[in-house]
Amino acid sequence: MDRKALINIIKFLALVGLIIEAMFSMVLITAKIYNEKIGYFFEYWLGSIIFFGLILILFRKHHMKLSIKEAILSVNLVWIMGGVLGAIPLMLLTHVSFVDGFFESVSGFTTTGATIYSDISDLPKSALMLRSVMHWIGGMGIIVLSIGLLSLINPTASLALFKSEATGITPEKITPKLKQTAMKLWQVYILITILDLILLKIEGMNWFDAINHAFATISTGGFSTKSESLGYWIHNPWILWTTTIFMLLSGINFIAHIKAMKGDFSGFKNEETKWYIGLFLVLSVALTLVHYFQSNDTLFFDATNAFFTISSILTTTGFATLDYSQWGQAAIAIIFMAMLLGGNAGSTAGGPKIIRYIVMFKNLKFQIKKFLFPNAIFSVKIDKKPISMNTINSVGAFFFLYIMTNTIIALYLYANGYDTMTSISAAIACVGNIGPGFGHVGPVDNFAFFTDTQKIVLAIGMIIGRLEFFTVLMLLSRDFWKKF
Amino acid sequence: MDRKALINIIKFLALVGLIIEAMFSMVLITAKIYNEKIGYFFEYWLGSIIFFGLILILFRKHHMKLSIKEAILSVNLVWIMGGVLGAIPLMLLTHVSFVDGFFESVSGFTTTGATIYSDISDLPKSALMLRSVMHWIGGMGIIVLSIGLLSLINPTASLALFKSEATGITPEKITPKLKQTAMKLWQVYILITILDLILLKIEGMNWFDAINHAFATISTGGFSTKSESLGYWIHNPWILWTTTIFMLLSGINFIAHIKAMKGDFSGFKNEETKWYIGLFLVLSVALTLVHYFQSNDTLFFDATNAFFTISSILTTTGFATLDYSQWGQAAIAIIFMAMLLGGNAGSTAGGPKIIRYIVMFKNLKFQIKKFLFPNAIFSVKIDKKPISMNTINSVGAFFFLYIMTNTIIALYLYANGYDTMTSISAAIACVGNIGPGFGHVGPVDNFAFFTDTQKIVLAIGMIIGRLEFFTVLMLLSRDFWKKF
Ligand SMILES: [K+]
Ligand SMILES: [K+]
Repeated sequence: MDRKALINIIKFLALVGLIIEAMFSMVLITAKIYNEKIGYFFEYWLGSIIFFGLILILFRKHHMKLSIKEAILSVNLVWIMGGVLGAIPLMLLTHVSFVDGFFESVSGFTTTGATIYSDISDLPKSALMLRSVMHWIGGMGIIVLSIGLLSLINPTASLALFKSEATGITPEKITPKLKQTAMKLWQVYILITILDLILLKIEGMNWFDAINHAFATISTGGFSTKSESLGYWIHNPWILWTTTIFMLLSGINFIAHIKAMKGDFSGFKNEETKWYIGLFLVLSVALTLVHYFQSNDTLFFDATNAFFTISSILTTTGFATLDYSQWGQAAIAIIFMAMLLGGNAGSTAGGPKIIRYIVMFKNLKFQIKKFLFPNAIFSVKIDKKPISMNTINSVGAFFFLYIMTNTIIALYLYANGYDTMTSISAAIACVGNIGPGFGHVGPVDNFAFFTDTQKIVLAIGMIIGRLEFFTVLMLLSRDFWKKF
Repeated sequence: MDRKALINIIKFLALVGLIIEAMFSMVLITAKIYNEKIGYFFEYWLGSIIFFGLILILFRKHHMKLSIKEAILSVNLVWIMGGVLGAIPLMLLTHVSFVDGFFESVSGFTTTGATIYSDISDLPKSALMLRSVMHWIGGMGIIVLSIGLLSLINPTASLALFKSEATGITPEKITPKLKQTAMKLWQVYILITILDLILLKIEGMNWFDAINHAFATISTGGFSTKSESLGYWIHNPWILWTTTIFMLLSGINFIAHIKAMKGDFSGFKNEETKWYIGLFLVLSVALTLVHYFQSNDTLFFDATNAFFTISSILTTTGFATLDYSQWGQAAIAIIFMAMLLGGNAGSTAGGPKIIRYIVMFKNLKFQIKKFLFPNAIFSVKIDKKPISMNTINSVGAFFFLYIMTNTIIALYLYANGYDTMTSISAAIACVGNIGPGFGHVGPVDNFAFFTDTQKIVLAIGMIIGRLEFFTVLMLLSRDFWKKF
């Protein structure tokens, strides 16, 4: 690696580091308002600001223009850096070990929402705010960073990265300039967050809970300020349904939201969103019925919890209203299906995402048709536009990597003595950026009992899943490092 | 469907039915030798022979020439017919229900080897022979029927079918005429079986056990004549190592064996076989070490059992020497990996098969290379020959179907109250034609406890897996039935 590449990467990391620390000022504000002791947090915060600031000043004359490879390496490093930048304040504020802090922090920035804390409600408000802020930055990062910030540096790299992160699904271009798109994504992201938090405030939350839950909802992160998660508001259907709707909105391609802001709702009429809503309704109704027949609650109460749960899992948010792992195995099977699906591409949701299932099912139909009519000419079409063989291939490769990663992590945990359900669902919950699984990592449990090594493996799983495999896999390729 | 197509299919089914019944004569011979009562088996057998014979005589002037669609439909029907033709004699000989007989029979013909009998050693020898014969016909069916018998009818259909069953992996053509290849496959199949049974006899088995185990080994079926499976010969390393080697041989492409008969061993030098042997060694050594450190046995004893177990699971045979599910979770994790791999294409083994993993890993490398060097021209090569994008696509589709089928069956079982490990491993063991899984379907357990519906679902899973998904999925396509 030459000097120029190194400076490019360092400057990029410093820039992101500064943004993260700037956002962490909300922790200071929270501590001030609630009069909380924050140990050396202020010193850490100020030191980081100065550190990143000095780097930027030092290289102020260096024109940062990342090559594709540099951008890929930077994006990988940025998530690890985020993990460290979040781990230290968590250590200072809640006195956890570095590994615990790193796990929680990576879980925050990747919007996974798996936690090592057993009693959330007991945490200082500044620590709760820190976790929510990590979600919010991470969610923004996923939809904006790759085509936003990077487009300021190098449009080619950002385009390529977007391609690599969306793995073959070409983003619909609504503005010729990516920079403009990035700014609009920011606006929409902030707007939806504000809308959600105002509604939550009106419906009965205090400002603190409203802000934190809005952050965790729009980023599909799932950290709550309460040990009972949204179950704290179990008798407030307004809050639960509002959150159900906003999780669902956050699982939709944000390009559609930009269009909607202009009064154009065509973004919601594509095949992916239609299937997404359809699957949400089918799974929610199924879960309502299965749960209703084994509970003594009213149908409305059960429907509220079932629709909330499917929305939470399908969008990979991971909030819970009740311990749904107690609803019986048929209910768990339905929720498990939602775990394997995920939201829409271009949203904050994780998982394989609906569009990839559509591509694979259309590919099956295509393969059969090709076999039956070998001489006919046709292609796989999404929203009436043909997609290339290579795109289909990369989707097949995505599923292969998704299954391989989950299988390897699950077998690793199983080999270390955990039960089958805990091993499998912990892997899927982390790699899919969902948060809670089943077994010992259910919605009312936490990840504290894993060993340090296991926590690091799961944290790496979160990053691999969040960067959709290829971005990380690339680093293992010899071709990547050749003539870097 | 017109009259001609109907007669084509009926004649084909009658021909296969007659071959099956002809082979079932071994049951009569067994009963005669051991002087066993066989109820109405003789009447059933004679009736079937006459029934199929009459159909063939009735349509003797009809020139059977199956179209591609007719061939696909026939192959699907032939496995269901096999299930029925095996179920009835099992009912007569062992007094089980039709569904139990059907499950056992489909398990036999698909060379799965999952059983509903709790005490194998107590079964009449005629029933044991019946089960082994079903394996042997099934194994032969899988490698020969599709390119053998069907090639007598219509080379195009057989080629097409071979393509559909091998899903995209073009078989290496070693003789220009498929009919000739089919005959050679027969010869090799019989030869290896005889070689195995003679060795087993010399090493200490009686003729009956030797014949049965040779049938179950070469077909990678896994039905034994003993409740302890090969554990009955636990202190006879000769028998165990012979079986280890012959299972391994049966998991290799039979085209390689044909070549080897002519003194040309190049068939074993392809990428798939190399990886297959390599993975076998790595997994076996790993299992030996893991098992050795938690047992009090000699290293040789543990190695014998570990190599045997990996050979048995990797080739999807399903024999056991000991209850390996008691070797601890690390050992189970290693065995689980073997369950997900499978043998070579063109062998009697089930599972996804090594070649498909090679294709997927090379595709990953290809995708990364294509991303890094968008203007360079290269392709995915297997054994130095380039393979088409569409072939890679169909392999991706195969894995997608493999995962989907297993997931749906596992979730179905789980929703019905079984534990996670039982649900998942029962699905993988049936769809992969392995036989034993873990949990309640471990190597010393059986499938009797499932309900009738669950047994039928699992039996269908075996057929879907055996026909490698596409052949069955084809029937669900509207295009298939259009202008049949
Ligand atoms: K989440
Ligand atoms: K088997």
